[in-house]
Amino acid sequence: MRLRNKPGAHDKINEHPDRVISTPADFRGNWKKEIFKNENPIHIEIGMGKGTFVNGMAKLHPDVNFIGIEKYTSVIVSALDLTLEQALPNVRLLNIDANTLPKIFEQGELAQIYLNFSDPWPKNRHEKRRLTHESFLAMYESVLVKGGEVHLKTDNQGLFEFSLESFSRYGMIVKNVSLDLHKSGIKGNVMTEYEQKFSSKGNRIYRCEAQFR
Amino acid sequence: MRLRNKPGAHDKINEHPDRVISTPADFRGNWKKEIFKNENPIHIEIGMGKGTFVNGMAKLHPDVNFIGIEKYTSVIVSALDLTLEQALPNVRLLNIDANTLPKIFEQGELAQIYLNFSDPWPKNRHEKRRLTHESFLAMYESVLVKGGEVHLKTDNQGLFEFSLESFSRYGMIVKNVSLDLHKSGIKGNVMTEYEQKFSSKGNRIYRCEAQFR
Repeated sequence: MRLRNKPGAHDKINEHPDRVISTPADFRGNWKKEIFKNENPIHIEIGMGKGTFVNGMAKLHPDVNFIGIEKYTSVIVSALDLTLEQALPNVRLLNIDANTLPKIFEQGELAQIYLNFSDPWPKNRHEKRRLTHESFLAMYESVLVKGGEVHLKTDNQGLFEFSLESFSRYGMIVKNVSLDLHKSGIKGNVMTEYEQKFSSKGNRIYRCEAQFR
Repeated sequence: MRLRNKPGAHDKINEHPDRVISTPADFRGNWKKEIFKNENPIHIEIGMGKGTFVNGMAKLHPDVNFIGIEKYTSVIVSALDLTLEQALPNVRLLNIDANTLPKIFEQGELAQIYLNFSDPWPKNRHEKRRLTHESFLAMYESVLVKGGEVHLKTDNQGLFEFSLESFSRYGMIVKNVSLDLHKSGIKGNVMTEYEQKFSSKGNRIYRCEAQFR
């Protein structure tokens, strides 16, 4: 996603502390009780972009709490606009880097993690930056419930190949692999902005679920 | 592959017991010593068809012993013709069903298994017949060395999706995944007859390696 500095983005975010949680580490271990006020499972999307997916999922699954994570302030304001418009009770946003997850959630606090059209980092020397690299998987495992899942969607063949290898090397169980999602007849697929644009060109979307043992 | 009864196929096979081993169970545990007369690793291809792959690989890898397996007598005669023509010292053929492998090889006797364009058995109720079904993986593990590998190539999307899931569920490590083999720039790929025909139409070939832990 191309990033432009958006004037007033910080101010806008600060005006909605009920939606974009500004001191998330304060709630470590207490997200369900203090933020969502229920006992529903929490799913997060890392790199939510403009928030179409996280809001769409929240609407479809009112019994799940969703947290959208986005490190770019200039991007998260768009997601905030949509979230305010949709006004769903089960959506919160975080303006953080994924690397800080263990400071924000304790072991077992999350049930599921979505990675949608993440940066593929195609160069070999950038392998460690891919969100399905072993070091990220270890981090996800440290905040997920036992048997928690990572759901991956991408149009990038190289990232998908790498991710399948990384999941299996880590010992995860790969499920519901689809090598052409939009032709698979899957139900309940919520498309991201990027996915809508990309698949309208007839290109393939790859998807799988990977579960920690 | 369409199967026709070939008159004289049995006779032809019986004429070449040095190539198509007629009583393979007799050599269980002694293939290297008694058949190949060397200590090189043994690789097998299950469902070798006309034998192009197994002979091509044997030529490329003279330090590996190859055994091509084919249950249909009418098909193995073509592989025998090619094998006689190529006259490579490191190729043998077996006219058996894959289910009988453990009667023919002992634990650790094989290093690698190739599955090329295996029957996809697309119907759910035929899942157990797919050569990457859990029951087959258990059988492969019982004849392979520790850390032995299964190398899969197919043009069938459904079979490839199923196989990735089956490998990971079994706890195998999936490596060198290629979702479009002929565009991946891989070297040393030996094509099967089917692969040549299919890929010339511009269709995708899927490939991966799965290693037992």
